[in-house]
Amino acid sequence: MTSQRYLIIGGVAGGMSAATRLRRLDEHAQITVLERGGYVSFANCGLPYYLGGVIEERSSLLLQTPESLGSRFGLDVRVLTEAVAIDRAARTVTARDLATGDETVLPYDALVLSPGSVPIRPPMEGGDRTLTLWNIDDVDTAMARLEVQPRTALVIGAGFIGLEMVENLVHRGLEVTLVELAEQVLPPIDPEMAGPVAQRLIDAGVDVRLGTRVVAIGADTATLSDGSTVPAEFVLGSVGVRPETSLAAAAGLELGERGGIRVDEHLRTSDPHIWAIGDAVEKVDAITGEPRIVALAGLANRHGRLAADAITGREIRVRDALGTAVVGVMGLTVATTGWNEKLLRARGRDIRVFHTHPASHTGYYPGAEGMSLKLLVDAGTDAILGAQGVGGEGVDKRIDVIATAMAGGLTASELADLELAYAPQYSSAKDPVNMLGYVAMNAADGLTPSIQWHEVDAAVDAGATVLDVRNPGEVADGAIPGSLRIPLDELRDRLDELPEGRLIVHCKVGQRGHTAVRLLAQHGRDAVNLDGGYLTWKAGIDARELVADAAELAA
Amino acid sequence: MTSQRYLIIGGVAGGMSAATRLRRLDEHAQITVLERGGYVSFANCGLPYYLGGVIEERSSLLLQTPESLGSRFGLDVRVLTEAVAIDRAARTVTARDLATGDETVLPYDALVLSPGSVPIRPPMEGGDRTLTLWNIDDVDTAMARLEVQPRTALVIGAGFIGLEMVENLVHRGLEVTLVELAEQVLPPIDPEMAGPVAQRLIDAGVDVRLGTRVVAIGADTATLSDGSTVPAEFVLGSVGVRPETSLAAAAGLELGERGGIRVDEHLRTSDPHIWAIGDAVEKVDAITGEPRIVALAGLANRHGRLAADAITGREIRVRDALGTAVVGVMGLTVATTGWNEKLLRARGRDIRVFHTHPASHTGYYPGAEGMSLKLLVDAGTDAILGAQGVGGEGVDKRIDVIATAMAGGLTASELADLELAYAPQYSSAKDPVNMLGYVAMNAADGLTPSIQWHEVDAAVDAGATVLDVRNPGEVADGAIPGSLRIPLDELRDRLDELPEGRLIVHCKVGQRGHTAVRLLAQHGRDAVNLDGGYLTWKAGIDARELVADAAELAA
Repeated sequence: MTSQRYLIIGGVAGGMSAATRLRRLDEHAQITVLERGGYVSFANCGLPYYLGGVIEERSSLLLQTPESLGSRFGLDVRVLTEAVAIDRAARTVTARDLATGDETVLPYDALVLSPGSVPIRPPMEGGDRTLTLWNIDDVDTAMARLEVQPRTALVIGAGFIGLEMVENLVHRGLEVTLVELAEQVLPPIDPEMAGPVAQRLIDAGVDVRLGTRVVAIGADTATLSDGSTVPAEFVLGSVGVRPETSLAAAAGLELGERGGIRVDEHLRTSDPHIWAIGDAVEKVDAITGEPRIVALAGLANRHGRLAADAITGREIRVRDALGTAVVGVMGLTVATTGWNEKLLRARGRDIRVFHTHPASHTGYYPGAEGMSLKLLVDAGTDAILGAQGVGGEGVDKRIDVIATAMAGGLTASELADLELAYAPQYSSAKDPVNMLGYVAMNAADGLTPSIQWHEVDAAVDAGATVLDVRNPGEVADGAIPGSLRIPLDELRDRLDELPEGRLIVHCKVGQRGHTAVRLLAQHGRDAVNLDGGYLTWKAGIDARELVADAAELAA
Repeated sequence: MTSQRYLIIGGVAGGMSAATRLRRLDEHAQITVLERGGYVSFANCGLPYYLGGVIEERSSLLLQTPESLGSRFGLDVRVLTEAVAIDRAARTVTARDLATGDETVLPYDALVLSPGSVPIRPPMEGGDRTLTLWNIDDVDTAMARLEVQPRTALVIGAGFIGLEMVENLVHRGLEVTLVELAEQVLPPIDPEMAGPVAQRLIDAGVDVRLGTRVVAIGADTATLSDGSTVPAEFVLGSVGVRPETSLAAAAGLELGERGGIRVDEHLRTSDPHIWAIGDAVEKVDAITGEPRIVALAGLANRHGRLAADAITGREIRVRDALGTAVVGVMGLTVATTGWNEKLLRARGRDIRVFHTHPASHTGYYPGAEGMSLKLLVDAGTDAILGAQGVGGEGVDKRIDVIATAMAGGLTASELADLELAYAPQYSSAKDPVNMLGYVAMNAADGLTPSIQWHEVDAAVDAGATVLDVRNPGEVADGAIPGSLRIPLDELRDRLDELPEGRLIVHCKVGQRGHTAVRLLAQHGRDAVNLDGGYLTWKAGIDARELVADAAELAA
């Protein structure tokens, strides 16, 4: 048997995972990796932190070199080498040496495409001053630009990477403006969850402009769509990425409806000798079963390994994508998995929504940090559709647990059953994830109907009364206008003070509200619990205010 | 309809969860809680930390009072009141006021037993000097004893709570001796995982005596079974607890084979009007389906709520118990779920065992902390049977994720598929849990056979050669005696240097060993990977040394 020739295009996360796995599975194959950039296996997720000086050494970003991969895995890794054409009939790829322009034709038995994605650059005047942070060359350019000591920076796009850019530029001491087209930061999560993140940025001195876009970039300022001008000596853009499909499209491979390379359940493209993985490829969404573009390193690595398995004839199973992600923003952790409320409601899904505000661990052990969690549940099946968390310590843990529960097919109510590690400095006897399960179970069982923060106004207009069951000290720190106030511990004795009609009950976080709703329901009252209590309502209202403030600033 | 009379015996975790849930479900019931101690709903898991001064205020431990529970939930909570007899035919309980000795007969429609557990006190000379930390009275007594400023302390029992005692006494500045009957600390985990915990204690100045028991306690010293004497001005014991079943047994309720109260799948005892929950009750083990005693606060809380649901006619499902637990020891986090290797091997289960040594997050982002993980897998089904973690940041997260995967019925290989939240300061693109999945999959697929640290000697005796593929710098820091050393990156070119026969390949943690085994296997060699690499082997050998050292100290 002659040795197999495996050719891989793209030498970062997915491509290099495929190449090293292929070697482990086939010691005798010829394995060649072509990488257009100057580096392979670099730490793309670390780039913003190198820019910010948190990661001090550039060499830390370079995890492997062509030489190290050659000696350990017998790989022929060619950097600064672009695959310019695929001849599918001949099963060859034309590779161009970007230094010399020389072209070589490389035959393959199996070809893996891992070309990744490219940052989107909206066309605008001065747009060429917008730098991105997608590879080592990008960060080298950005670092060079910072050498002239700009005082001000503009970041375009408040997604996960955009906020990492902001944090790191603030860390470097720059005065930063953040412009985002959506009316919130972090569009993948919901506005009432994102509001506190925007506020944290504002508190750190960032000029946050929501519902706005950049229309022109000048020498050291930029003009926004609302007509205002912001300082912008240094400009970074992170408004999204698009799959790098040019080579695949030119070779006539099928693309999907979302514009990524289409692959089957074995990661194989429309050509039986070509597999594709990573950001360039459409995944299957775990919630809808529909095609989805997800640019996440974990999936790229995983699929690289699976493609190698498939190529060497092993059975593989590609799991549908949840899109779990996390970002650190000025000491806050923000994490999400699955779908958000905006998308689910836009799809007309019948959902239940739960907000909680637990502490990272028991209140009696020092150092507990607060967090807000949100759970999205199918109203018909109790299936978990998504979760979000914002706060201090332990947010990433809870989202990981929920993502795992989703992978295991647990219902929202079953979160109550999870046996999670408890000692007072790590969690509570009822972990925040258990509590979400309890809340979901009370709703699933019809025990405590609830209402969302954005539904309160309409309910009040329809005649409902807001009943605040917090203590006077809590009420003094802020309350819903027009609410009736009776502390929970007095409620049982003051039922006759309640007006006719529906009662929207709330406490600070929802737990006493639940007790109050149960009490009232058993006294024959129509009572609903304001989900997430005053804290969620306030976060939602504040998030709206931020947008209004931004509009006012522009006017 | 007359209102129901619910009587609950025991007012801490399980009992109070049952009482408050009963109120939420039945506003009109009479709910009475009898508590033998002086306090209800206290923070029993916080007691060691109050002793150590980490929790400064005693009041922090008292989460609720009879008064607060009365006003909020309309509960009749009677502390210092002992249930002395149950008349099952009459459906009454005789309650004795411990202050006055007065007895009252209380009728019930439903009775909930949540009497908890009591610390075991091995009989010995001077044993009455051994204090425990099981309730508020215990901690008050201990604090009073500490007022005379003892310089030395003896802790008997190196389980989870024993180690919390040690940490807190060290924190208070005492010179601490720890005596444990088993040949390791933390018997619920395996010795090679527990070794580094014992070493950490030794490094903190604790005199750790393994495989030893206390035979007599004198005025300010104690005598051990090996004949040695240790200082012991202050003595705390934590050698386990037994279910408090005296009342239940006297009432003729069925007990189980493990000595706990027997309940059915609806938490009902052998009497249809009596339910039981918490430490006193036998749970069903999630791995074996057999009865099991598990004294964990999370299960008590959960079952209290479920019992209330069952009593009020709701459908409940009690999930079998995994026994997930965590403890902090001198900056180390130790967590476990499910079964350990010792128990599984003693049962003759056909298992696969995996050790890894990942970092809490990417190496290129500052502050990553190391950890060791262990996964126990059914060799036939790939089902996860247990997991253990020891290390810094993020150990609790990984054990929680694995416990959730177990609850969801995911196989070990499916851990590779989990989409966990990744950014460089939180995890790696392949999270440590994903890596366990990859390792498990390589074993399940037969790609990389492995050998455990405790099997090396026998394999070498049978003619195998240990092949160390680490770099010379690593080898210089310590190596397995008699090993052949060829760095992985040179292995492909130096195959002819290898001796005949089986090769036991190892690197530092197992990953390069896996690559080497794949390489060697495809060159026709019989090669196995030393699971967990040098680090696990060293931890196992060191753990044995600790016991030998202790024996030598005694001799």
